[in-house]
Amino acid sequence: MSFTLNKIINLLKKKDILIQCNLSNDIIIEGVESLVNSKNNYITFFHNAKYKNDLINTKAKACFINKEYLNLLPKNCIPLITNNPYQAFIHTLNIFFPLKKSNGKISKNAIIHNNSKIESNVEIQDGVIIKENVFIGKDSIVSSNTTIDENVHIYSNVAISNNCHISNCIIQKNTTIQSGVVIGTPGFSFAIENEDSNIMNHLGKVIIGKNVRIGANSTIVRGSLLDTVISDNVKIDNLVHISHNVKIGKGSIIAAQSGIAGSTSIGENVIMGGQVGISGHLIIGNNVKIAAKSGVIKNIEDNVIVGGYPAVKIKDWHRSTIKLYSKK
Amino acid sequence: MSFTLNKIINLLKKKDILIQCNLSNDIIIEGVESLVNSKNNYITFFHNAKYKNDLINTKAKACFINKEYLNLLPKNCIPLITNNPYQAFIHTLNIFFPLKKSNGKISKNAIIHNNSKIESNVEIQDGVIIKENVFIGKDSIVSSNTTIDENVHIYSNVAISNNCHISNCIIQKNTTIQSGVVIGTPGFSFAIENEDSNIMNHLGKVIIGKNVRIGANSTIVRGSLLDTVISDNVKIDNLVHISHNVKIGKGSIIAAQSGIAGSTSIGENVIMGGQVGISGHLIIGNNVKIAAKSGVIKNIEDNVIVGGYPAVKIKDWHRSTIKLYSKK
Amino acid sequence: MSFTLNKIINLLKKKDILIQCNLSNDIIIEGVESLVNSKNNYITFFHNAKYKNDLINTKAKACFINKEYLNLLPKNCIPLITNNPYQAFIHTLNIFFPLKKSNGKISKNAIIHNNSKIESNVEIQDGVIIKENVFIGKDSIVSSNTTIDENVHIYSNVAISNNCHISNCIIQKNTTIQSGVVIGTPGFSFAIENEDSNIMNHLGKVIIGKNVRIGANSTIVRGSLLDTVISDNVKIDNLVHISHNVKIGKGSIIAAQSGIAGSTSIGENVIMGGQVGISGHLIIGNNVKIAAKSGVIKNIEDNVIVGGYPAVKIKDWHRSTIKLYSKK
Repeated sequence: MSFTLNKIINLLKKKDILIQCNLSNDIIIEGVESLVNSKNNYITFFHNAKYKNDLINTKAKACFINKEYLNLLPKNCIPLITNNPYQAFIHTLNIFFPLKKSNGKISKNAIIHNNSKIESNVEIQDGVIIKENVFIGKDSIVSSNTTIDENVHIYSNVAISNNCHISNCIIQKNTTIQSGVVIGTPGFSFAIENEDSNIMNHLGKVIIGKNVRIGANSTIVRGSLLDTVISDNVKIDNLVHISHNVKIGKGSIIAAQSGIAGSTSIGENVIMGGQVGISGHLIIGNNVKIAAKSGVIKNIEDNVIVGGYPAVKIKDWHRSTIKLYSKK
Repeated sequence: MSFTLNKIINLLKKKDILIQCNLSNDIIIEGVESLVNSKNNYITFFHNAKYKNDLINTKAKACFINKEYLNLLPKNCIPLITNNPYQAFIHTLNIFFPLKKSNGKISKNAIIHNNSKIESNVEIQDGVIIKENVFIGKDSIVSSNTTIDENVHIYSNVAISNNCHISNCIIQKNTTIQSGVVIGTPGFSFAIENEDSNIMNHLGKVIIGKNVRIGANSTIVRGSLLDTVISDNVKIDNLVHISHNVKIGKGSIIAAQSGIAGSTSIGENVIMGGQVGISGHLIIGNNVKIAAKSGVIKNIEDNVIVGGYPAVKIKDWHRSTIKLYSKK
Repeated sequence: MSFTLNKIINLLKKKDILIQCNLSNDIIIEGVESLVNSKNNYITFFHNAKYKNDLINTKAKACFINKEYLNLLPKNCIPLITNNPYQAFIHTLNIFFPLKKSNGKISKNAIIHNNSKIESNVEIQDGVIIKENVFIGKDSIVSSNTTIDENVHIYSNVAISNNCHISNCIIQKNTTIQSGVVIGTPGFSFAIENEDSNIMNHLGKVIIGKNVRIGANSTIVRGSLLDTVISDNVKIDNLVHISHNVKIGKGSIIAAQSGIAGSTSIGENVIMGGQVGISGHLIIGNNVKIAAKSGVIKNIEDNVIVGGYPAVKIKDWHRSTIKLYSKK
């Protein structure tokens, strides 16, 4: 497969990715690769200053690059100037290698309840179990050995991978759920008593927005009375735990092995590093950034960057680290 | 569904939950909800001082409440005085919405070995695999795509959710195991050599008591020679790791993403926050409390509260935090 | 089952485990157990100074022991002197109780694609799904409800436990993968945009070496363009997260709940405690040791021991801890 560079640039412009490029003659691009592995006629990208040396030596024909690094680019490599080389690269990669789409086949080795509705062009693989009163929208994929429990509503173009247990939830379009994810189990709520079973029933759902991504073996708990909410464009990495009644605002990003305790509300466009923990019943503002491994035990206002445990403003955390390790 | 308030109070008294209430006329309760969402004729609860404002404005007909907050209760709301409003609420919720019980159906799409014994009124869902010489007690539920391996013994009224792998264990009555849980795998024990496979076989079991709750995607490792023991009433949240030969005493609570290394013994009624780590071969006393994200590397005596890494008495940890963040 | 002590010693010598032992008459060993539980005619081991009291009181007939503790051994117990009593014990245990081997049976309840090749003496259990163009080498085991996706190549004597999703990978001989493991999912790479699905496709594989061990519910992500590499003899515990493009050198050990971010390279014979986090794009040298719960945010040279967050040399971390908790 190959594309002309003009074709690629035009496709990126449709995605609102601005590329500046002076191209006298159009050229053929045959692939997309890293700085090191790009051959002639390949397109590459430079997004991390750690790889300057690779940039200087790249054999790629063209490179997505920030203006400020232009002077490092080899002469033979066409600069494709953009504010977000990584984003441009991702879209170009997906042009060359499109994400998997539904093949529209429903396996005869799946068990689908009569009262459930499967729209057109849905792929349901071997070993899938779909219980009563489920709805699955068109172009969606449910992969092997996943169970979709009663009353779950899945919109169109949703991809659910293998060995998931999906219950008590609504999942909106274009969302991707990786393997081993558990959605909709009851929360960690009980009365401590001696001799009786005393787990609390849960009535809430999990509401998952559009374009959400949930990583492998993560767990998302249903609300107790109200719902747990994962808003549009939220991206969650592997082995993350989201407790009952948590709300996560649009576009927030949660790296691997982080956990959020019950009833905490996370704003929009929040970025959390890996292994972060956030206590219950907190309010985290919009555009907050939380360093990896932080432990958040207080509310955080909009636009603040925090780190440490207990998490404090990033400057205070850095100061405390210097103090801690100084030899005085 | 509706109940009279007297009926609810009597049911709670049977559970040894003390409710004080002066009721001139009995009234009908039609539901149970949060302070904010309770309509007239609903019952609610107040358990967290953060929600005082919601208490003042609740429209509920009656409210489980501690004596000390009585003055905040609206005039029209009947006080149901108790030391544990949250516990009273949980039981009331479960009166209105009982936990799922076995439907007694054994799916024809389950694979059950001839030599295994399934008692009466057990629910076995599609895709379940039950291997040789398994026993499952009455009223238990095994959900879709779970495997119960050879020789596992499950007592009555146990609920095991989807995609679990249950091996080398005994599970006592009224225990709940959420989806994706792995029980009975060999521990992380091996001899470091160059060229050979050198993983250690494990012979111990996992012994799980009554009324235990194990959260989604948690892993519980079998003992090497002796057994791993999870005692009665232990509650474990999601993504928790319990290593080989660990013993957890009655009624202890372990929040999400915590891990306990091999051969450590945890006392009774211990409470561990989320993302706690405990080293191997330690003895943690009874009634110990461990703050979230702590790292415990020494034995802890009974009744001590600890925090930090390395974990120290909570006052020492708080003092160290103040020192760390002070601008001097 | 029983073995003579000479037979055991000879088998260990074949494994290059040096045992010194003056044995006038050969004796029968009937089992292998802990110091406390060994009966007469049992073999035991002493590997942790915490259990000195158990050593003094053991009833075992023989004991693997370091030279320096010989004086604590009861008179009736034959010393089996070795530098690594734990290793000697593991091999002896595996002599008495060999690890499970393939029974060579392919379940009629497995779904295996016609174009896939299964070599001789492979065990494939109920509910297994093997997709197109898979290769599985002789003596391997695939356990219930695991899916092996298209084009996966598995060498001989590999054991894959239950409910795994194995995709986009090569797994070399003698490797063990516990239950619930997810291998080969795409990484956490996306362009942050408002209204479109923007997850990055991944093209790399996961290359897993010989004698690797991957613990339950761990996740290993495929490379983006290049591969993720887990080298020979690497041992990974439960609930560990390995991101895209990570490389782990031979013989390295990663304890439970640790996570390694994208494109980081870990050297050979590295030992990581539990709940460690390592940032992306780092280079960790050979023979590095990382204390549990450390957060590594910089490259580490060969042979260095680190701890803390941010991780520093172990002495500096210990000094900082003393400073932190001192009452001055």
